[in-house]
Amino acid sequence: MLAWLPFADADDLQARIGGLPDGVEFEPATSGTELGASPDKVEFFVLPYLSGTAALDRIDEFTSLQVVQTQTAGYEDVLARIPDSVTLCNGAGIHDASTAEIAIALALANGRHLDDFARNQTSGSWAPQWGTSIADKRVLILGYGQIGKAIEARLAGFEVASITRVARTPRDGVRPVSELPELLPEADVVFVIAPHTPQTDKILDAAALALLPDGALVVNVARGKLVDTDALVAETSSGRLRAALDVTDPEPLPAGHPLWTIPGVTISPHIGGASSAFQPRADKLIKAQLTAWAAGEPLAHVVKEGHSVKEGNVVKEGHSVKEGTRR
Amino acid sequence: MLAWLPFADADDLQARIGGLPDGVEFEPATSGTELGASPDKVEFFVLPYLSGTAALDRIDEFTSLQVVQTQTAGYEDVLARIPDSVTLCNGAGIHDASTAEIAIALALANGRHLDDFARNQTSGSWAPQWGTSIADKRVLILGYGQIGKAIEARLAGFEVASITRVARTPRDGVRPVSELPELLPEADVVFVIAPHTPQTDKILDAAALALLPDGALVVNVARGKLVDTDALVAETSSGRLRAALDVTDPEPLPAGHPLWTIPGVTISPHIGGASSAFQPRADKLIKAQLTAWAAGEPLAHVVKEGHSVKEGNVVKEGHSVKEGTRR
Repeated sequence: MLAWLPFADADDLQARIGGLPDGVEFEPATSGTELGASPDKVEFFVLPYLSGTAALDRIDEFTSLQVVQTQTAGYEDVLARIPDSVTLCNGAGIHDASTAEIAIALALANGRHLDDFARNQTSGSWAPQWGTSIADKRVLILGYGQIGKAIEARLAGFEVASITRVARTPRDGVRPVSELPELLPEADVVFVIAPHTPQTDKILDAAALALLPDGALVVNVARGKLVDTDALVAETSSGRLRAALDVTDPEPLPAGHPLWTIPGVTISPHIGGASSAFQPRADKLIKAQLTAWAAGEPLAHVVKEGHSVKEGNVVKEGHSVKEGTRR
Repeated sequence: MLAWLPFADADDLQARIGGLPDGVEFEPATSGTELGASPDKVEFFVLPYLSGTAALDRIDEFTSLQVVQTQTAGYEDVLARIPDSVTLCNGAGIHDASTAEIAIALALANGRHLDDFARNQTSGSWAPQWGTSIADKRVLILGYGQIGKAIEARLAGFEVASITRVARTPRDGVRPVSELPELLPEADVVFVIAPHTPQTDKILDAAALALLPDGALVVNVARGKLVDTDALVAETSSGRLRAALDVTDPEPLPAGHPLWTIPGVTISPHIGGASSAFQPRADKLIKAQLTAWAAGEPLAHVVKEGHSVKEGNVVKEGHSVKEGTRR
């Protein structure tokens, strides 16, 4: 069983995941252009991270392929390029720590003016400003999946006044999106971490932003399109709201866009997942998936099953499916 | 019993502490130059915050004074100006939330390059950088008083690898300062929050900094003099260490000082305590102290007792001491 894995060589693999399950061999595939040597034999392919989908340009040559594993949570750009017979698993969870961390980092940096102080470093200007603490604030988490929970976990020690969880599906302790009109007026800090769907597109539009109390902070670590940029520009330009954004619409934010220089707006260039926390969690998932695959156990985070499985595990020409990957 | 309090008027007092204990009256004293109307009658004086010690220039006129309450934790600059007969209480605790928050904010902002991104906002430059997360890191907290504990509380949700507590006095779960030579090589992030004393002066000197592993981060939210600035400049200029500093030596850091512009050094201008978290906690302490004082209960955070108390509560000419303030 041949796997293409994002490790430079056997030593790198050993250091990062401590070896392979019995019966599994590997070839390095570390970028979209540096793929393994045996495209006709690869069965399990972990897509290189931050290489786009270039690795899939040759997928028709990968005639033994059974599983594609992404290292991203999103997979929309990959899905259409995966043959029907191949199972696709995403990297759910591996960016949670990093993304939740950037959410807190942005909220704190904005409130305590670390962005202004960083700019003052250039001129060597010691210019204290009174800041806004997250302590005592009423927090609303819009989107309560794994990253929303990870944000909440990180807030535990910060003496916030309250945390309100909002999600599409109401459940115990989680309020439905339909209640946002009643909840936004009571929110001092809103963490946006819902997926981008037709339902969440511009969920924070002008009307929603207008409901926030004066001085409220919008932290977006989801997708830029969840917030109406023009409305956000208006509300932050006036000084009524503050914003801390790891994602924008458009993205990348073009030079000259008004968001860049509005006081009270803090911007990071979509680096939510790009930290040292990523690799250990990605490696752990890769190891677990390879182990499951080798043992014939169900894979985790299957977002599309290879259809030959659904057709009764028939081994199809070109893209066979092993019993073990059935799930 | 007349108190001078940092409230603008009766409405402000009502909004912030909900009234006074029976028998206590107040006059506003909101800055070093805006003191109350009855200096000969004031018995309990809460020093205005961030006004220096100017309010004490006239202390010889405050002939009924029994208690001075600071709103700072430090009181070295006040102590020498307090008459022997007057009790001095400090503001221990009221800055813990704000200071612990800036410690975490600085550590995260430095690791995730929010300082660079803030500077990039000026030119509208979208320039992602891979960051260093606090997740998986071995944390050392140097100084384990209330703020050290508050830092630890805030780290609870961040998936750090370990937390090592170090203090002058070893106790259960807290290692003594004498073990630093063995502990520093295992620390990826050091939070410095010990008081500045002759024993802690330059406790992180060149030899101590040299023990830290490559890439380690020094976060100083205590006093600049706990770190040898020249040594820190050398270790950060070389890129071997990173630093995030709310305090510096000298302070204010003069324009042109090398620390300002070293990549990997993040600086905020000693605003650890200056946030929205301060006032509610200060007000809560003021209320509690006034209540205790009016009821004849012991005051909290007494750092110097009026000596007439120790002499058997003799009412001395000029500065009397009420039975109730005996503590």
